[in-house]
Amino acid sequence: MKLSRLTAALGYEFRDIRLLEQALTHRSFGIPNNERLEFLGDSVLNCVVSYALYARFEKLQEGDLSRWRAGIVRQESLAGIANSIELGDYLKLGDGEQKSGGRQRPSIIADALEAVFGAVFVDAGFDQASRVINALIQPALNSITPNESGKDAKTALQEALQARSLALPHYELVATRGAAHEQEFQVECQIVGLNIRTIGLGRSRRMAEQSAAKLAVEELK
Amino acid sequence: MKLSRLTAALGYEFRDIRLLEQALTHRSFGIPNNERLEFLGDSVLNCVVSYALYARFEKLQEGDLSRWRAGIVRQESLAGIANSIELGDYLKLGDGEQKSGGRQRPSIIADALEAVFGAVFVDAGFDQASRVINALIQPALNSITPNESGKDAKTALQEALQARSLALPHYELVATRGAAHEQEFQVECQIVGLNIRTIGLGRSRRMAEQSAAKLAVEELK
Repeated sequence: MKLSRLTAALGYEFRDIRLLEQALTHRSFGIPNNERLEFLGDSVLNCVVSYALYARFEKLQEGDLSRWRAGIVRQESLAGIANSIELGDYLKLGDGEQKSGGRQRPSIIADALEAVFGAVFVDAGFDQASRVINALIQPALNSITPNESGKDAKTALQEALQARSLALPHYELVATRGAAHEQEFQVECQIVGLNIRTIGLGRSRRMAEQSAAKLAVEELK
Repeated sequence: MKLSRLTAALGYEFRDIRLLEQALTHRSFGIPNNERLEFLGDSVLNCVVSYALYARFEKLQEGDLSRWRAGIVRQESLAGIANSIELGDYLKLGDGEQKSGGRQRPSIIADALEAVFGAVFVDAGFDQASRVINALIQPALNSITPNESGKDAKTALQEALQARSLALPHYELVATRGAAHEQEFQVECQIVGLNIRTIGLGRSRRMAEQSAAKLAVEELK
């Protein structure tokens, strides 16, 4: 795969393209590989996401900011972002990893995405890395809809049910649609005691659960 | 205490001094307090320390980089740095916290230091925050002396003893000297089976342990 397609998707041209190549090299391929850049990129990502949340949600307290950040930087979310720019296609993997489907493994592509962020940071500094990361996490940021207490919908639903001494809701994945990098998940939220059933859609299972929980909270009111 | 003394110690003049004031306000004092800035500053600190280690130790692998980073950003180390700039003197605390010695509590002053880093980041961006943080962590960075494997001295000593089927070393704090913000710790490392005893000095208990372990590793050779 041509790296120029990837740099276009990132919206960043590397001064030293070897940094990007290293970021795309899994340890199964040999040394040097992307582990040091991943170490760095993980912390750059955390910092950028922290500031994005800090600046955007002025009323959220620290605990809620941490919760939302954890949702954005978790492996599943990062793998989704990596798939949206087809990062797996550019990875250098060892033969064994290649044959066993490493190119699709969420842990490998999420780590490589962090390494790419580290590579941008080394190549051009924090502000450029921040710009690249912010563009990619925008959909996840936009999906955050804190209620007044700053709690996510699943937490709010759980607390509302506990306050009424009702059993916890039950979430079930009822369908997935679309190709690997543009899957849509469909989750049902069921509250047995109240005969409430809602369906949420989202680009990850977690997002679909949140969306279903939000509808359930509205039905509760 | 005059904030100008603190900003001189930080080597940074705030454009918006209210950010610094908020960073120095513990939650026991009320709202707004420093918890949101601490959330942000923690991630800024992590990022700056990660890059400092990444750039300085080109041969260290990810696991070793993580270990050294954990040593620098742990509460005890941060409280030591906070004490070196007398940060506790500037804190705004609630009455109860004030009376129970909150001004000296390592968790409170370490959190406030992170909040100050967050405040610099919000006031002037990553590069200024990085400059302030790098100046303060320089002694800790300088105390890092990875051996060829990149392992710290305590780990290296433990592995050397295990390879010879000997019992683990025993560390004991034998003395502390000096006022709170310039304490020196003295730790003895004892290897019973070999009748080895070494004494390490350091600005934290952990640093003193490392220094004692290093001497013990040399005696072992």
